[in-house]
Amino acid sequence: MKIAVVAPARPIDPLVGARVSAFAAIAYPQVDLYVHPQCFESDGHFAGSDQVRAAAFLEVANDPSIDAVWFARGGYGSNRILELVMPRLGDAARNKTYLGYSDMGFLLAALYARGFGRPVHGPMAVDIGRQGGDRTVARSLGWMVGRDRQGLEPSLGGRPAAAFNLTILGNLIGTPWLPDLTDHVLMIEEVSEPLYRIDRTLFQMAHATQLQGLAGVRLGAVTDVQSNDPPWGETPETMIRRWCGEMGVPFLGAAEIGHTGGNTVVPFGVA
Amino acid sequence: MKIAVVAPARPIDPLVGARVSAFAAIAYPQVDLYVHPQCFESDGHFAGSDQVRAAAFLEVANDPSIDAVWFARGGYGSNRILELVMPRLGDAARNKTYLGYSDMGFLLAALYARGFGRPVHGPMAVDIGRQGGDRTVARSLGWMVGRDRQGLEPSLGGRPAAAFNLTILGNLIGTPWLPDLTDHVLMIEEVSEPLYRIDRTLFQMAHATQLQGLAGVRLGAVTDVQSNDPPWGETPETMIRRWCGEMGVPFLGAAEIGHTGGNTVVPFGVA
Repeated sequence: MKIAVVAPARPIDPLVGARVSAFAAIAYPQVDLYVHPQCFESDGHFAGSDQVRAAAFLEVANDPSIDAVWFARGGYGSNRILELVMPRLGDAARNKTYLGYSDMGFLLAALYARGFGRPVHGPMAVDIGRQGGDRTVARSLGWMVGRDRQGLEPSLGGRPAAAFNLTILGNLIGTPWLPDLTDHVLMIEEVSEPLYRIDRTLFQMAHATQLQGLAGVRLGAVTDVQSNDPPWGETPETMIRRWCGEMGVPFLGAAEIGHTGGNTVVPFGVA
Repeated sequence: MKIAVVAPARPIDPLVGARVSAFAAIAYPQVDLYVHPQCFESDGHFAGSDQVRAAAFLEVANDPSIDAVWFARGGYGSNRILELVMPRLGDAARNKTYLGYSDMGFLLAALYARGFGRPVHGPMAVDIGRQGGDRTVARSLGWMVGRDRQGLEPSLGGRPAAAFNLTILGNLIGTPWLPDLTDHVLMIEEVSEPLYRIDRTLFQMAHATQLQGLAGVRLGAVTDVQSNDPPWGETPETMIRRWCGEMGVPFLGAAEIGHTGGNTVVPFGVA
């Protein structure tokens, strides 16, 4: 089985590529892990120009010998290649797993909306750098290699689900790249935002016409919260309960997803 | 003629209320300017609780003796009162001007979407504190008092227009509060964001299904730009040209709107 790593947003350090390759070779010897050299390109903010990142993604997505596309890292930029890649995906792109989170939510959403492959929200190659990072990336590798359910988000089972960074979800709302999530449990997580912005994006989620048919909402980790001046008087849980109420969709509790070492795996649809 | 000032988001200092009242008394003696005491309330982040802010807005919007509602200040929070106020607006709310910008875009959008009054993007009471602030607020007062066209955005004329802070526009996309802007010139401005976020929100604008029928886009001031690490390699004009191209909508050039003393007046629809 072959897994390809590409970077549709920001680059990774070659050391990250070496570490993740070494870990995969020991823990999953049956896997041929191909870290595309595009992952190490640098074009200012991005891992190569929009054209370079699009070409690398299309190369691995359209290669029938590759079983899974594992995203190297988030950051910002995968939305900039949607118009370049989505019309050029072929049949081979329909039969594989695409796994990542954060900014990669743009691609996961677009792939799910168009019925390409099996998008999955979960740890990326760069997460090997976290404390206990071997265990973190093992959840993703275990799922891609053998559908190992040990790394799945604990609440999954039966009902279709999808998971997004809240800000990325907000940027998808109102566009044709947001998939139909009717009857899905939507899990959201957030990182590096002040609470007033989180509240504002929850307003958008709650009022989004496209999301009226959700089965429920779960809240993942809200980490690295930026300061609010003056201090914000509500917790993330108070906020999400308020907005789910205004949305008329049940708040179902916590989800173990987020920009943390404990980030679990959420296959889109039914796991 | 009577103008009421309310604060649906953050409070203003009583000194701001006094200054703007004194200026209006001298420059527009025919005006009865009523600064609602709610403008000075403080409930953590907000100028009073959601209920207090909603009640003050409804009081002045539904008062037939008031000709115009002038927003005191932006910040964050007017989205939180939409569900409280929009179903409770009466006939008197249909016959007046509502004027503000920034976070007030939530209310201006909702009012325009529902056909209430004449929403206008322009300087608020708090802008009297800017250098040359008398001239800044005089554009808004001149328009409210006597339809003085000297303070209007220079490109206006004939074609319907609307203006928004880009981030607030982004948060409105995909919700029923975004008005139908078909055949409108959309003007956007931004403040206190890093360029990668501006790029990301422009992506959402460009791909928004609701905005496909725009006549064109104009770019206002992009001020207090936050640092980007690594440095962003594009100017705001390069970015907006790129996204307008992907949107298939003409970029029409600059607009004199923004978080600046030069902010002009943009009545929604045909001025």
